[in-house]
Amino acid sequence: MDPFLAAALEEARLGLAEGGIPIGSVLVIDGQIAGRGHNRRVQQGSAVLHAEMDALENAGRLTAADYARSTLYSTLSPCDMCSGAALLYGVPRVVVGENRTFQGPEDYVRSRGVELEIVDDPECVELMRRFIAEKPELWNEDIGV
Amino acid sequence: MDPFLAAALEEARLGLAEGGIPIGSVLVIDGQIAGRGHNRRVQQGSAVLHAEMDALENAGRLTAADYARSTLYSTLSPCDMCSGAALLYGVPRVVVGENRTFQGPEDYVRSRGVELEIVDDPECVELMRRFIAEKPELWNEDIGV
Repeated sequence: MDPFLAAALEEARLGLAEGGIPIGSVLVIDGQIAGRGHNRRVQQGSAVLHAEMDALENAGRLTAADYARSTLYSTLSPCDMCSGAALLYGVPRVVVGENRTFQGPEDYVRSRGVELEIVDDPECVELMRRFIAEKPELWNEDIGV
Repeated sequence: MDPFLAAALEEARLGLAEGGIPIGSVLVIDGQIAGRGHNRRVQQGSAVLHAEMDALENAGRLTAADYARSTLYSTLSPCDMCSGAALLYGVPRVVVGENRTFQGPEDYVRSRGVELEIVDDPECVELMRRFIAEKPELWNEDIGV
């Protein structure tokens, strides 16, 4: 597995071990992880810290020039909010572990010029399938359903 | 002025007084403010707490049924990230103080079924015009330019 997707998956598993929603993300700039994170809905009662948002937040304040060289990795297809964050900051490339259990606005994101790569990784799929089966209400809350 | 837009403007001024970016927001449910907030880039070094995100975060964990009855007020046209957050949670109506100094993806948001009302309030315009003239680099950082 791509080492950065592996790092995002490690974040997802950390979140699961904390009793949280198992989605992880890393922001990579110039081949280095600039920020890593996982969904914090349960842990911090957060409505905005999805994994991608947590990774962006942990990367801190960056310039447009920094984001222009970045790739955002997520174990799951980014939702409207997280896709919007990538668009705001001009992240040119997003690598997605899987989009079988949930699919964000991928066509729209591509139409705005972002390169979106879907890895379709079986470990990412299995992690989410099990979580959704076990905690469907928590999952629905997280994606606004 | 609409009392909820006035509350958002009050938040924007609080942010300015803290040395921050003067954008404020409130989330209203059933005629009551469920969460209020302002941009926290300077104050918390935050890349994700735009005003609307801060208001959503301060409203805490809500259900889809709660968001379905909500209106999000912002002193400024919501950016890609904040618009995406409204879409994620199915906020049906967004009231915007002004969109002269910055315009988010309004057509897209409308195409997704959200009612977007632009108030074009002169106080909101003046607050942002002055801020952008005084701190253009901070403003550009906040909108990813």
